[in-house]
Amino acid sequence: MIVLLTDFGQSEYVGVMKAVIYRIDSEAKVVDLCHDISPQSVIEASWVLKNNYKYFPEGVVFCCVVDPGVGTERRALAVRTADYYFTAPDNGLLWETLREQKVVETRVIPIPEGASHTFHGRDVFAGAAANITSGRFDTLGPKTESIERLELYRDGRVGIAIRIDRFGNIVTNLPGEGKATYWVKAGEHHWKAKYYKTYHAAPDNELFLIEGSCGTLEISLKNGNANDRLKLLTGERIEIS
Amino acid sequence: MIVLLTDFGQSEYVGVMKAVIYRIDSEAKVVDLCHDISPQSVIEASWVLKNNYKYFPEGVVFCCVVDPGVGTERRALAVRTADYYFTAPDNGLLWETLREQKVVETRVIPIPEGASHTFHGRDVFAGAAANITSGRFDTLGPKTESIERLELYRDGRVGIAIRIDRFGNIVTNLPGEGKATYWVKAGEHHWKAKYYKTYHAAPDNELFLIEGSCGTLEISLKNGNANDRLKLLTGERIEIS
Amino acid sequence: MIVLLTDFGQSEYVGVMKAVIYRIDSEAKVVDLCHDISPQSVIEASWVLKNNYKYFPEGVVFCCVVDPGVGTERRALAVRTADYYFTAPDNGLLWETLREQKVVETRVIPIPEGASHTFHGRDVFAGAAANITSGRFDTLGPKTESIERLELYRDGRVGIAIRIDRFGNIVTNLPGEGKATYWVKAGEHHWKAKYYKTYHAAPDNELFLIEGSCGTLEISLKNGNANDRLKLLTGERIEIS
Repeated sequence: MIVLLTDFGQSEYVGVMKAVIYRIDSEAKVVDLCHDISPQSVIEASWVLKNNYKYFPEGVVFCCVVDPGVGTERRALAVRTADYYFTAPDNGLLWETLREQKVVETRVIPIPEGASHTFHGRDVFAGAAANITSGRFDTLGPKTESIERLELYRDGRVGIAIRIDRFGNIVTNLPGEGKATYWVKAGEHHWKAKYYKTYHAAPDNELFLIEGSCGTLEISLKNGNANDRLKLLTGERIEIS
Repeated sequence: MIVLLTDFGQSEYVGVMKAVIYRIDSEAKVVDLCHDISPQSVIEASWVLKNNYKYFPEGVVFCCVVDPGVGTERRALAVRTADYYFTAPDNGLLWETLREQKVVETRVIPIPEGASHTFHGRDVFAGAAANITSGRFDTLGPKTESIERLELYRDGRVGIAIRIDRFGNIVTNLPGEGKATYWVKAGEHHWKAKYYKTYHAAPDNELFLIEGSCGTLEISLKNGNANDRLKLLTGERIEIS
Repeated sequence: MIVLLTDFGQSEYVGVMKAVIYRIDSEAKVVDLCHDISPQSVIEASWVLKNNYKYFPEGVVFCCVVDPGVGTERRALAVRTADYYFTAPDNGLLWETLREQKVVETRVIPIPEGASHTFHGRDVFAGAAANITSGRFDTLGPKTESIERLELYRDGRVGIAIRIDRFGNIVTNLPGEGKATYWVKAGEHHWKAKYYKTYHAAPDNELFLIEGSCGTLEISLKNGNANDRLKLLTGERIEIS
């Protein structure tokens, strides 16, 4: 099974990656984890991978392409861990996940002659993933020990808006502390927010905090869109104390 | 086969549901019916399910998650009918479909200890669907006879904008009456609309009526977006007489 | 394998096409190439198909539905070429692809009694595709020799904005000429644009040209959205000299 995680949205770039995969491994099962990562947001992709990979069956190959450095000297990696495989540009996307997963071996995928300078999802990573499901991890390229780091920045009670979901919930990387109210600073806004256990329990028309499905605090608005009010971007600083 | 219907849009929530399914039933075939239901619109999901379930092969499991009451006491249901299985929150989403399908048995799925209060798609419904395809419907939980009702409101010639599609067509729940023109009231607009059998037959630049693929009237604009003009929301009152 | 290419976006229309396919051929593997074609843009669909079909394994059936003439006398076609099958409305969508692929046989699919006048994706093309994967190409309908033409307009250094991708890159149908700078006319804009080989090499905040993954020039903005500035629509005239 190959799981795709990209910032390609609804474009044909995802379909073409699947084409390349099926050409190499016609039996592959391809699953979309998410293609709605904000364009070029490596940190958002890192968060989505770290929080969700463990729900997939063992042995799965994660093919992750959020790649602002495409066409440069940045390396393309394939990683085998105790439970999974990963292939991605070496830009930090995998860092937080690999802190949790014991790395067995990392290989550097050479960029083929004639690869596009703008689309390594098609010309590098899809093929690498299909070669892994076909049992050719060991032939992908030379071994390496190094990998780029990218931490999901958090300093005490200061973190970031790590993801804004379809409902307008602003997912932070800050865990709750069991309080009934918190001070929240986000963008130009500063307010005292109540914590509720469910959306239903919250009053209408008031920005509140809830523990989201990744176990961190989220800013929400019942039957509404919290980010229509706050207008935050992924990566913006948030303080919740 | 498991068919997903949610309001999760392009978020990773859909991918994670698939992960949970494949962990339980690695042979499952998962198909996306639609994830573009307006956030929290149970009535819109009800319409999409009712009008489309019958195109799927018999035996399919529909896993429907539009769930504004997630985390509250609202029940989670699994239903076996003559031809299909359904799993969904007990909020009326299934009502209109079950009026057409003979219900054989309904079970209440217990919420597991430690389930998130915000994401039962992952922690309750995906697993239930995979347990059904794995042949464990009978072990999902205790039987029940009751289920929430939710009717797709229509009173004579007064109905609602039940769905607004990608082209800006406004799908109503009102059938046609074979007329050449109708009076239409929608939002603050009130006009005499012609009926055409095809998009092509309609003139440019004029809001018209057409029978959509569900057999009800739709408000359309040839080579344009009708709802860019009318700016209706799902659920808004429409009168066509 | 059946590959879908439509302008249905995230609507349930795609899911219903899959339902019809699985009813006929429960073993079919269905892959989404792209559903994000601009509404009714046959020319954009033509481009996406022509540039991507060859990445798929031989024998695949492409089921393409961008169909502004749905419900009229326009014909529905099924085409067998040396390497692939195609089914689509006879509106030019297939023309550019079939110039590259040797056509073996073309058949006209009759529109069934009772087919919707608005949704032949469900009522004509999905079934045709599944009949092809089931080995019934020869029974789809009578043979024909003719097919609508639609060329991807380009006259020397004048072409069109053929596709605008998720990142705001404006894909043109004009190949590069190996220059370091070009004059670009697009909409009301006229400027001297530098050419860069990678996104990374470009300066911030300046519209530049790059060779995209289809081998033609694209207008881009590093870490930004070029089309937020140019506001072009698919099909608009572009001159790059």
